[in-house]
Amino acid sequence: MDVNEKALNLHYDLKGKIEVISRKSITTREDLSLLYTPGVAEPCRQIAADYEKSFLLTRRSNLVAVITDGTAVLGLGDIGPAAGMPVMEGKCALFKEFADVDAFPICIDSKDTDTIVSTIALISKSFGGINLEDIAAPRCFEIERRLKEICDIPVFHDDQHGTAIVVAAAMLNAMKVTGKTMGQMRIVINGAGAAGIAIGKLLIRMGFGNIIMCDINGIICEGDQGLNSGQEEISHISNLKKEHGLLADALKNADAFVGVSRPNLVTKEMVGSMNQGIVFAMANPVPEIMPDEAKAGGAAVVGTGRSDYPNQINNVLIFPGIFKGALSVRAKEITESMKQKAAYAIAGMIPESELSPDYIIPSALDKSVADVVAKAVAETAIEEGIARSVSE
Amino acid sequence: MDVNEKALNLHYDLKGKIEVISRKSITTREDLSLLYTPGVAEPCRQIAADYEKSFLLTRRSNLVAVITDGTAVLGLGDIGPAAGMPVMEGKCALFKEFADVDAFPICIDSKDTDTIVSTIALISKSFGGINLEDIAAPRCFEIERRLKEICDIPVFHDDQHGTAIVVAAAMLNAMKVTGKTMGQMRIVINGAGAAGIAIGKLLIRMGFGNIIMCDINGIICEGDQGLNSGQEEISHISNLKKEHGLLADALKNADAFVGVSRPNLVTKEMVGSMNQGIVFAMANPVPEIMPDEAKAGGAAVVGTGRSDYPNQINNVLIFPGIFKGALSVRAKEITESMKQKAAYAIAGMIPESELSPDYIIPSALDKSVADVVAKAVAETAIEEGIARSVSE
Repeated sequence: MDVNEKALNLHYDLKGKIEVISRKSITTREDLSLLYTPGVAEPCRQIAADYEKSFLLTRRSNLVAVITDGTAVLGLGDIGPAAGMPVMEGKCALFKEFADVDAFPICIDSKDTDTIVSTIALISKSFGGINLEDIAAPRCFEIERRLKEICDIPVFHDDQHGTAIVVAAAMLNAMKVTGKTMGQMRIVINGAGAAGIAIGKLLIRMGFGNIIMCDINGIICEGDQGLNSGQEEISHISNLKKEHGLLADALKNADAFVGVSRPNLVTKEMVGSMNQGIVFAMANPVPEIMPDEAKAGGAAVVGTGRSDYPNQINNVLIFPGIFKGALSVRAKEITESMKQKAAYAIAGMIPESELSPDYIIPSALDKSVADVVAKAVAETAIEEGIARSVSE
Repeated sequence: MDVNEKALNLHYDLKGKIEVISRKSITTREDLSLLYTPGVAEPCRQIAADYEKSFLLTRRSNLVAVITDGTAVLGLGDIGPAAGMPVMEGKCALFKEFADVDAFPICIDSKDTDTIVSTIALISKSFGGINLEDIAAPRCFEIERRLKEICDIPVFHDDQHGTAIVVAAAMLNAMKVTGKTMGQMRIVINGAGAAGIAIGKLLIRMGFGNIIMCDINGIICEGDQGLNSGQEEISHISNLKKEHGLLADALKNADAFVGVSRPNLVTKEMVGSMNQGIVFAMANPVPEIMPDEAKAGGAAVVGTGRSDYPNQINNVLIFPGIFKGALSVRAKEITESMKQKAAYAIAGMIPESELSPDYIIPSALDKSVADVVAKAVAETAIEEGIARSVSE
């Protein structure tokens, strides 16, 4: 039985991967009177008098909405809200299992930016944070930007920022392993959608040298026609020498390749043209180049999204801890600083003595990562003065 | 410590009454690959190809949204979406504890009917049913009506129909205990909001005799000015003799009083003017007349919403089983027939030999009620041909 068949059977057996339970059993009259009428009126009155108490007296304290419009689900594309749900439920299960954060999936039946923004804003007071998921670019940029303005809770598009943070963490350690210098690195990112652009922006802000963005037409250069808003924005701060050409041209003498694109786009020869190349081939499930092939081409470090090779670069290392940290101090947003600190915190989990080309990032199954990320995020929020409660 | 203080402390301790858990622990690579990528793509594809499979492969199979706009929360009125949440969470906890139905609370930050309807419709594909809660009348009537047209899952305003069903169940047994004849009963309902009107309509459809609706101005009569749409509708089928007057006038020779109004409106003398009166005084927490007072006035049967007196008429007996039954057969709506059958099923749980003036309805804590209600609802759905799946 292959993985698809096994997964399908498991989904039929489980009838949903998440479940909503009561945090207290209800068996006596007193239970009913304290958890429901008449006692429940008192916490309602308290919140009506002081809105902030909603974060102490209800599950908002620990609750994230995982929200999609179903337009960019995994590699499946626009499959709609009902069909996107298995991924959202999976994400919610990961939130709980990896960080003890409650997460609930909502699929919105619209592809209209205004509608999606207003729907999420209208239900946002039921949650402590909003994790946007699998929303197609460039719509996802505007949706996130507007929600961050409207909502008083953190809004985080995981496909962008979760991916960017985990790539940054892996890149920090790959840099150490290969002895490269951050400011001098030439990094080629293939795939200029939501994830690729977010990776590019974060690496630039962290001080990595020249970032070259590529899409299906090759290198993106400032002034190119037909760029979307996100691509246009990054074109001003990337590709500093205003190069033109195809992916193969970009990769010549590049220090690193980051693929968030499609299977089998990179050849052994292209890797061979790199400068002791770091190759993060993250197309799923089939990467831009298979690890063995990349190594045969001379890659110094190889990472993929897959669990069956070393260096799995998976954002399950990120989102549970990011929200756990933000919720723990009631940070009202996830800032640039928090993202960078999270990347450094994860990279720092591997002692220098243990770093190797096959071990640059903790295992995706390492449940201690979330607490390390959460701590970095919470401390940064406090430093930045955007924590609204440090403890109870 | 009084109940309010106790309840508040408990809410601070619990930090939310519900919790979202994973139905399977995630510890191995295989867990990740089956519950998340790459395996999760297969159930997504299956649902994309056949929408109905969303009810088998995701938690929609057993999941109800408990949705409010926070405008009519308990006796507290319009306290807004954040402050309404403790009640919604309590309701969700009851769903799980009493019927093993998963329920998730959503508070919508709007009082506009169009906005509320569209928001709920846009997220409805994430759920198997919609339980509307604590939405003010008359807006609640239109919201429910329009959602029933738009959504392909059951939509049920519990304040209306849950209350109506539990009152009908209690009335059936009170009728038996007092030896009254259904078609000849004069029943006075005080409070012509969402609950009162729904109770009136259900009792009329079940064949109870003359229903007299009263509001703060007294008896409602066909042709009265200033009625809202719900009141106007019921005015055509109630108060058959077109009486006018105050509540005290309505109660003369009445067989039953149903109060969904305000504390202490009914006097011992008014009860004394009834015909061997059945008194359901359900204002919370203080009823229209206290049970001892009603009995002193000559009431034959007394019920309240309170757990500290016999005959607690509480819709926790209803909503968990109603949705459990509807979800079990994928009924696309909750019909009139289902409501009536549910009322008869609950009434029938007490053997005639055990019926007494102090025992006309099962205990609110009796967890066997939900299955009895669910069975009646599911069987009715099958009879009516609106069940979409009888078993797996």
